[in-house]
Amino acid sequence: MNAKQLAAAEAVTHIEDGMTVGLGTGSTSFFAIHRIAERVKEGLRIRAVSSSKGSESLARELGIPIVPFADIDAIDATIDGADEVDEAFNLIKGGGGALLREKILAANSRRFIVIVDESKLVRTLGAFPLPVEVVPFAHELTVRKLEALGCKPAIRQADGRPFISDNGNYIVDCRFGAIPDPAELSVRLHAIPGVVEHGLFVRMTETVVVGGADGSTRYL
Amino acid sequence: MNAKQLAAAEAVTHIEDGMTVGLGTGSTSFFAIHRIAERVKEGLRIRAVSSSKGSESLARELGIPIVPFADIDAIDATIDGADEVDEAFNLIKGGGGALLREKILAANSRRFIVIVDESKLVRTLGAFPLPVEVVPFAHELTVRKLEALGCKPAIRQADGRPFISDNGNYIVDCRFGAIPDPAELSVRLHAIPGVVEHGLFVRMTETVVVGGADGSTRYL
Repeated sequence: MNAKQLAAAEAVTHIEDGMTVGLGTGSTSFFAIHRIAERVKEGLRIRAVSSSKGSESLARELGIPIVPFADIDAIDATIDGADEVDEAFNLIKGGGGALLREKILAANSRRFIVIVDESKLVRTLGAFPLPVEVVPFAHELTVRKLEALGCKPAIRQADGRPFISDNGNYIVDCRFGAIPDPAELSVRLHAIPGVVEHGLFVRMTETVVVGGADGSTRYL
Repeated sequence: MNAKQLAAAEAVTHIEDGMTVGLGTGSTSFFAIHRIAERVKEGLRIRAVSSSKGSESLARELGIPIVPFADIDAIDATIDGADEVDEAFNLIKGGGGALLREKILAANSRRFIVIVDESKLVRTLGAFPLPVEVVPFAHELTVRKLEALGCKPAIRQADGRPFISDNGNYIVDCRFGAIPDPAELSVRLHAIPGVVEHGLFVRMTETVVVGGADGSTRYL
């Protein structure tokens, strides 16, 4: 197993019989979903909800029972990756473009378990461009308001056109360089009409599993 | 002319040659757009952007030049209606379902001119259900978070199915009864992942034109 697989396996030890589990998106979540599927084959009884069409398809293929949101009260635990983690457990997520659905799952989970490798650990967030999901309507004006917050914004592209999120929106990657106060920036971003959600996850997790390149696994 | 037409005509006196004008949505904006079109026929040279497909079609039909957002730097003045106005000029908007686009226009306008009749003036906002636009994904969880803020939420229906906004989202009408601190509620609503925007317009206007049933027009 590689470092990501080992860290994913450790994260999945927190999943227990009877839980409703949130499935993240991205390469780390890929390994977590595979590990959950192994445990389901071994007899673990869970039901799951997913943060992307991709993860949902994968989970179904592997035999993990997916249920509609109407059928659940809350999520017991969600497992997902992150693009940056600071010393206060704040995150930047959304490199994969699924930040809105990932944040909805995280915000509705009793426990949000994050898996990263050592390279994602930072003192201050912001070297990684912050993904911000915006509505296509009048996005030119919204992007200007993002710029006024002190970042260099770039509309994410795919095949020479704006990338479209699962929710039909654009993603603007905002280079802030450093984000000294994520909570304050979160409020300022939300105050911009046209911003649907952003990739700052402020105080949403208490459990970060770090996979070392040497195969070691530890908790932040 | 009826009271709404008279108030709309007064609001349109603020539009001058060379302006970029934002067009609102709803019955009051209908009269404002008609009045702007009359003045364009009389020689007023403006260009306009619109907060809904409906208003854009109407404006085009009436000969008002509509320009893409990519072509403008800012909006000089936007004229729109409101569902409630309190004594501090805070608004509830969105009864017509166009709150997100209306708010984008308002937030990007040098001047936001609101037209109402006397019945919309209140001491405290909240008797009118507050419209909140939410993404359809996992909306069951988002609605529960809205309820936890102390309101009675109802997903707006059209023809027996959820009403879909111009942006592909649901509208949840939230009965708060009274909203003593609109600024604080705004921040709390924005903090819920899945909430795209809400109908509280906090300190966004300084110009409210009130049309009286007797045909009088005054400024709040």
